[in-house]
Amino acid sequence: MVVASPFTLANFTGDKSTVLVAVEKSLLAETAVGFRNFSGEESILVSGAALRKFIEASGFTVTEFDAAALAAPASAAGGAAASPKAKQAKAPAVVEKKKEDDGAIKIGIEVKKNEDFPGWYTQVLVKTEMMDYYDVSGCYILRPWSFKIWAEIKKFFTAEIEELGVEECYFPMFVSAKALNLEKDHVEGFAPEVAWVTKAGQSDLAEPIAVRPTSETIMYPAYAKWIQSHRDLPLRLNQWCNVVRWEFKNPQPFLRTREFLWQEGHTAFATKEESDKEVREILELYRRVYEEVLAVPVVPGKKSENEKFAGGLYTTTVEGFIPTTGRAIQGATSHSLGQNFAKMFEITVEDPEKRGQKSFVWQNSWGLTTRTIGVMVMVHGDDKGLVLPPRCANIQVVVVPVGITAKTTPEEEAKIYAYVEDIVKICKPAGVRAKADLRDTYTPGYKFNHWEMRGVPIRLEVGPKDIAKNEVRCVIRHNGVASQLPRDNLKKSLPQLLNQIQNDMFTKAKAERDSHLIRMERFEDGFVETLDKKNMILAPWCERVACEKEVKERSTKIALAGEAADEKAPSMGAKTLCIPFAQPTENPIKPGVTKCFACDHKAVSYTLWGRSY
Amino acid sequence: MVVASPFTLANFTGDKSTVLVAVEKSLLAETAVGFRNFSGEESILVSGAALRKFIEASGFTVTEFDAAALAAPASAAGGAAASPKAKQAKAPAVVEKKKEDDGAIKIGIEVKKNEDFPGWYTQVLVKTEMMDYYDVSGCYILRPWSFKIWAEIKKFFTAEIEELGVEECYFPMFVSAKALNLEKDHVEGFAPEVAWVTKAGQSDLAEPIAVRPTSETIMYPAYAKWIQSHRDLPLRLNQWCNVVRWEFKNPQPFLRTREFLWQEGHTAFATKEESDKEVREILELYRRVYEEVLAVPVVPGKKSENEKFAGGLYTTTVEGFIPTTGRAIQGATSHSLGQNFAKMFEITVEDPEKRGQKSFVWQNSWGLTTRTIGVMVMVHGDDKGLVLPPRCANIQVVVVPVGITAKTTPEEEAKIYAYVEDIVKICKPAGVRAKADLRDTYTPGYKFNHWEMRGVPIRLEVGPKDIAKNEVRCVIRHNGVASQLPRDNLKKSLPQLLNQIQNDMFTKAKAERDSHLIRMERFEDGFVETLDKKNMILAPWCERVACEKEVKERSTKIALAGEAADEKAPSMGAKTLCIPFAQPTENPIKPGVTKCFACDHKAVSYTLWGRSY
Repeated sequence: MVVASPFTLANFTGDKSTVLVAVEKSLLAETAVGFRNFSGEESILVSGAALRKFIEASGFTVTEFDAAALAAPASAAGGAAASPKAKQAKAPAVVEKKKEDDGAIKIGIEVKKNEDFPGWYTQVLVKTEMMDYYDVSGCYILRPWSFKIWAEIKKFFTAEIEELGVEECYFPMFVSAKALNLEKDHVEGFAPEVAWVTKAGQSDLAEPIAVRPTSETIMYPAYAKWIQSHRDLPLRLNQWCNVVRWEFKNPQPFLRTREFLWQEGHTAFATKEESDKEVREILELYRRVYEEVLAVPVVPGKKSENEKFAGGLYTTTVEGFIPTTGRAIQGATSHSLGQNFAKMFEITVEDPEKRGQKSFVWQNSWGLTTRTIGVMVMVHGDDKGLVLPPRCANIQVVVVPVGITAKTTPEEEAKIYAYVEDIVKICKPAGVRAKADLRDTYTPGYKFNHWEMRGVPIRLEVGPKDIAKNEVRCVIRHNGVASQLPRDNLKKSLPQLLNQIQNDMFTKAKAERDSHLIRMERFEDGFVETLDKKNMILAPWCERVACEKEVKERSTKIALAGEAADEKAPSMGAKTLCIPFAQPTENPIKPGVTKCFACDHKAVSYTLWGRSY
Repeated sequence: MVVASPFTLANFTGDKSTVLVAVEKSLLAETAVGFRNFSGEESILVSGAALRKFIEASGFTVTEFDAAALAAPASAAGGAAASPKAKQAKAPAVVEKKKEDDGAIKIGIEVKKNEDFPGWYTQVLVKTEMMDYYDVSGCYILRPWSFKIWAEIKKFFTAEIEELGVEECYFPMFVSAKALNLEKDHVEGFAPEVAWVTKAGQSDLAEPIAVRPTSETIMYPAYAKWIQSHRDLPLRLNQWCNVVRWEFKNPQPFLRTREFLWQEGHTAFATKEESDKEVREILELYRRVYEEVLAVPVVPGKKSENEKFAGGLYTTTVEGFIPTTGRAIQGATSHSLGQNFAKMFEITVEDPEKRGQKSFVWQNSWGLTTRTIGVMVMVHGDDKGLVLPPRCANIQVVVVPVGITAKTTPEEEAKIYAYVEDIVKICKPAGVRAKADLRDTYTPGYKFNHWEMRGVPIRLEVGPKDIAKNEVRCVIRHNGVASQLPRDNLKKSLPQLLNQIQNDMFTKAKAERDSHLIRMERFEDGFVETLDKKNMILAPWCERVACEKEVKERSTKIALAGEAADEKAPSMGAKTLCIPFAQPTENPIKPGVTKCFACDHKAVSYTLWGRSY
């Protein structure tokens, strides 16, 4: 929040006892209050506590007042008829808020996305009340404004996998060291990050117990018991739960946290063909979560040997991209585990071809996490804050009454409020999630900023002039376009408009992503320079493990030597993101002819490279 | 499962090489295979592994066969026309299963509920695939058949609290020792059961971190930050999550487990009146979960001082009852925390009455756990297994084709299958969850037992005779009543019937519970003897802490001395269950006149006493 300027107090030379410094109390509790300088071009951020200290250090006493408390008794006692009077009475007290109307003062994000991306990201998450910090490092609080997005993702995905025949279940969170260690490659991938419970109350446990980093080793002993014959296949289970990976890298809300929420699917099939089919079906659902629900473009593909899931056969992924940093981000993965786990956990059925012989089942596992939310925020957010795609927005349309002044009669005011509420009533049966903002302690300007920062896709304004024309004013969040909409057609026009917004946001994000996806045939054509310009690179590659390691080293070296080095990039080297399923159709790989971009071997596929979260 | 009798093999005196002992392979994997003796009156249970050992010890070789695998290739190759042939071909192989039809052989629960209740409970949970054991003690696997019940409870409760204005969120699972210890009484209540994470990977953590046993101390530091003025109230959040209480008492699936699932609501209000109102609103929802969703009667009331939530002001509860053991069980609790936590965590707002003064908020917390599922199983289950109330049943109606014999033509068979599938199609738009059991490797008898054991409320059978009359045969699970239903009216009759079943199950359970609820005016009138007869007792009570302790001691003593002592009852003493909100209207407490049933003080209320889980 921003108030005019208390800093002039320091220069005050008169009789201080004649000055009453009244501060609206909620400001004093803010962690960051922004103040504009007189020209309005710059602003500084101080905490409420620091503000108090400054005023007191200048020799004044802070008198707190509570705008809400002042307003409440009057309107509660007087009812509708008395409310304009109540508003006049409290006018002096809320003078700071009134000023917001004329645009001189702004609530909101005080950092530009392009100038200080980490600062912007944090402010967006905290100020929109999506997330808050917590006193255990790497753990964060998911507040309702973000949790609702997760709920929408859950709803979409649960319905789709139910259709595929996957069932919901819940396995314990704890795993014994013995079970955890059964698949060697797998446990090596997770061991450094496993959290161990060693005590209960005052007693030491006989054996330490791990908190699940993922549930392969928890579930598969049961699968071995349940799967006895072909009649028990396929077995397809999913659970929504929390997992813990005690990473020591710098944590980042949603993107890298020590505890996070996810779904994990674990399935077993009789044949490789069936399991391969499912791997891709699930990946397609992940693509749809990103592209259809969150309007975030992703590249579906296969991970290189270096990057695949520890202990699995192969990994498929949907890869997202954050244009502001030029870094890619793994969106979700669908793994073929092959028969590795089946062999370790002895999950077998009688081989139908060879009587008396056992054959191992084919398994998959696949997961999607709350990281989705962070990616969506990073891709769509702007300098004003969050921008929510309609499909995952908890509130799709906010309706705000405007044009109510001291001169408005109680009858006129009641008419506006009724009109607003009527619009919300129209929305519900049309499948539109709408909310009326009827708080009478806030000005329309404050409300506009409030919902704009929170990313609500559509704002409808209703004032006396709109009502006279039987219209509403409609402002679209992601592009700022304003128009008048006939009230009688809202039932039809709003769902269409929300659809349009969803598509536009995806198209826009995709165009931006595509402009950062550069095709390149040789490393020497400026591989690192192109990465430095915040791009991903699609290059013909030999798919060899050694080659990927070499590219990583070479690109790190050049990046460190070059002037373009960006200290904030956590990984200077480039790695493979995925081998896209959609290979270039123009000048594709010529087997035996096309060479790897980085070594002398033959290229096998066009592979996507980049710096990554 | 039960097969005729392999035990005669031990007495076989002929040439063993002339005998082929073929065993359907799934039997060998069973943990418990039941065998009837020749009279069919008794049965014994052995594991599949023991069966194999017995046969081999008798000098025979076990030849395994897989009924499903035998059937599969034939029907896959031949399609519908060839399937009767396939069935004939495999007939000898599935001879054990055929026998089930004539009732000589039964799948299912092999222990009677009244004879060995713990054994019955375990068999029901494991054999119906609701639950399975896990290698960390006190932790269990929730399989889809039970998880779906939890999902139904979630759906009901989430919709109701959303209506009340409660929002969903997620707080971290870990809590620092410092935060956990802030409210003394509270932490004392949980400290002995707290699981501590002390290591991550190979590194010791600087400070041990607790896994949440409940989230008061996790959430309230954030509440202190978020709640600054009256505008921030009420704050009403809920989360669905896992919690850990490392109890050292004997664990019991669903009822007492070290990790369990629950929802926990945490709310803050400006006034005691608002918080009191919510305590009761939520308790009413808990009553509805039990009585309306699970058809389990409960007694809503207030806990005694002894039994209330540690650190709270008062606790309300819905108390269930298990007639088979005569023990009560706490169903769910809704706590008023008063201002205790607000004081410890400094959750304050400006007092609207006294400018400049802070007032503490009024808080509640409330929780409902997966225990609900265990209570439902114990109350409704019978000797055949699970009995599901329609509202929480994943499958409400199962449709089974019958009357298909070797003489049935492919056309006749196709007609029956089409009729079955058509019925399922009628159900969906009528809001009835129906499933056709078209597995062709199982006999109708096997299927009847399968779904009966799993508690599906309605079974519809469709045979040639039913089709001729355009009817279906309907068998109701909970009372075994069979009738013919006209096919054309199913859309109407099935929802009505499911409603009827839901109500009947509740009425029946309530009548049984009521018959175990004995009113008594004096301890000497046979308090302990009445408890021993598996009853709860409603008695006038002084509500004093000392008196409750004394009653517990006295009743323990008498029970231990008496002949009726039941070793299996974990707590011989009686405690208060609750002070019912519905006090007796006939001969109610006369204040100052009615005496406490157990001491010389005046009675304050009629209180419910019993032995409890």
